[in-house]
Amino acid sequence: MNVVILAHEQFPDRAKTALGLLRYSDDDVVAVLDRDNAGDRVSDHVTGVQDAPIVASMADAPEADALVVGIAPIGGGFDESWRADVRTALERGCDVTAGLHYFLSEDEAFASLAAEHDCDLWDVRKPPDDVGVAEGVASEVDAEVVLTVGTDCSVGKMTATMELARAAEERGVDAAVVPTGQTGVLIEGWGTCVDRVVSDFTAGAVEEMILEVGDDHDVLFVEGQGSIVHPAYSAVTCGILHGTQPDSLVLCHAAGRDAVHGYEDYALPGVETYVDLYESLAAPVHETDVVAGALNTMTVDDDGDARAAVASYETELDVPAGDLVRFADDRERVLEAVL
Amino acid sequence: MNVVILAHEQFPDRAKTALGLLRYSDDDVVAVLDRDNAGDRVSDHVTGVQDAPIVASMADAPEADALVVGIAPIGGGFDESWRADVRTALERGCDVTAGLHYFLSEDEAFASLAAEHDCDLWDVRKPPDDVGVAEGVASEVDAEVVLTVGTDCSVGKMTATMELARAAEERGVDAAVVPTGQTGVLIEGWGTCVDRVVSDFTAGAVEEMILEVGDDHDVLFVEGQGSIVHPAYSAVTCGILHGTQPDSLVLCHAAGRDAVHGYEDYALPGVETYVDLYESLAAPVHETDVVAGALNTMTVDDDGDARAAVASYETELDVPAGDLVRFADDRERVLEAVL
Repeated sequence: MNVVILAHEQFPDRAKTALGLLRYSDDDVVAVLDRDNAGDRVSDHVTGVQDAPIVASMADAPEADALVVGIAPIGGGFDESWRADVRTALERGCDVTAGLHYFLSEDEAFASLAAEHDCDLWDVRKPPDDVGVAEGVASEVDAEVVLTVGTDCSVGKMTATMELARAAEERGVDAAVVPTGQTGVLIEGWGTCVDRVVSDFTAGAVEEMILEVGDDHDVLFVEGQGSIVHPAYSAVTCGILHGTQPDSLVLCHAAGRDAVHGYEDYALPGVETYVDLYESLAAPVHETDVVAGALNTMTVDDDGDARAAVASYETELDVPAGDLVRFADDRERVLEAVL
Repeated sequence: MNVVILAHEQFPDRAKTALGLLRYSDDDVVAVLDRDNAGDRVSDHVTGVQDAPIVASMADAPEADALVVGIAPIGGGFDESWRADVRTALERGCDVTAGLHYFLSEDEAFASLAAEHDCDLWDVRKPPDDVGVAEGVASEVDAEVVLTVGTDCSVGKMTATMELARAAEERGVDAAVVPTGQTGVLIEGWGTCVDRVVSDFTAGAVEEMILEVGDDHDVLFVEGQGSIVHPAYSAVTCGILHGTQPDSLVLCHAAGRDAVHGYEDYALPGVETYVDLYESLAAPVHETDVVAGALNTMTVDDDGDARAAVASYETELDVPAGDLVRFADDRERVLEAVL
């Protein structure tokens, strides 16, 4: 499928979803919309991802099957400066997909335009109607289930999940990702944003996804969310832990992070506290162990320093750990520990 | 306020909300609707609660300000056999309140009748529009905050919360309840059913309530939900624990319960595991201790056996514990430990 990614004024540094798609999606990205960088190419700004031209608007973009909104302003609203691009896409028969809190499908102008041109509007954050209470049966699927958990939000759980799944596939393992957040859902083209379901259904939402694909693959990599000691988001983390009933855990952390992102009064506890909490909390429902660690060293410039940070994290964790994006040997070593 | 409670065919044993209202509400219950027991009085069936006549329908009930639906069938639907009672209430100018998943305010017939007769329809399970992400500030309120936590669902957290708050008030303490479930919200006349909010807002929903009343009282008793190791509902429990930032915890348990209610493949871990999990999970956000226990001995017929169950629970917990409904001395001892 050919897709265009909207990332106006935020590419690449504040366009996490756009970068995730460029890095991991099986779709062909035929253009990125960014009026601030029109005329450049993606490769002028980021390496190690799909290349594509950057253009100023949908009117300048080549033929495509879908337009994906690849940025999310704080609050998840719809920026009215994007309206012309969405309208042009629909008029050209493109589906439009977004992970905003503002639902495109409930915008009357977009809804009628989509109907007129026979296009789909897919709001990935809108929970499906049939999500319900967990039955406590996720561990019954045939697949081995690996869950990424974190010391905080935005430490690289989605990235670790994708890297491990892709690396496993490269080895010929029949692996699949169970996406639980908007970027993961956009990349995989299916899934439920677990943080948007009714709180009583948190575990049920992830269980349902595992039951849907768990007998069709040998290994599932489930994308975790938040952190078990996050002042605001721990509910989602806990529901995913118990709903997933994972066979093993990969603890994700960002080098240098010592307080909760956005809640700086809250210091992160030590790594061994996280290991103990995730394992002891999971055990009464389904026993599991932290078998590996993923360290995001993006903020560390020097490769030698990054290697040192990885070594220190691995010592604290006492299981294989590494930066799965930066160091290919780390990725293989961590994958070994997981499989 | 004079209220009528609807509890058709389920009073008293399967009418948990009706019993909660009869036991704890400040409102005067002027009738209970139960077509199976019409002609009896509440006191023919239950002691230690408000007495009221039982009548067959709203048409037989005395003047009242509100009709409260005091039962919830599995699935939370609306039983069409109740429609005539709700209609009669609205026609007589009574407000109607319910804790169903089916929202009366979205029933067109009820909505237009309520508008016509200037009545309110209050669906307590419908989350308010302004619930959002927690800021991590609940501990800043002036009040001492006590949270009831549990070994399982339906072990008596709501009851323990009410008993402790009422007993504290009797001692002249300025105490208030922060209700988080439909029965608590119906009894208190305000509050948010935390299990119905968007999962990302779980902690935020309880934090918002604590901020609303936390500077107006000396002690808040926050009603907990579920259990931290429940295969389906732990997300709500975890969000309430971190959103509340309690100063102390009361661990509630039901005598004889050894597996998760409705999930009997899951054995309950030992009491000391719960203490450890609740305390260690809370600590990185806000340190707290289990300072007392509440044991529901309703299924134990003999008072001596109930005393023995309490003694054994207290030994396991190693803090004061008791059945707060059955034994007045227990209630006072546990309250001492909490205040």
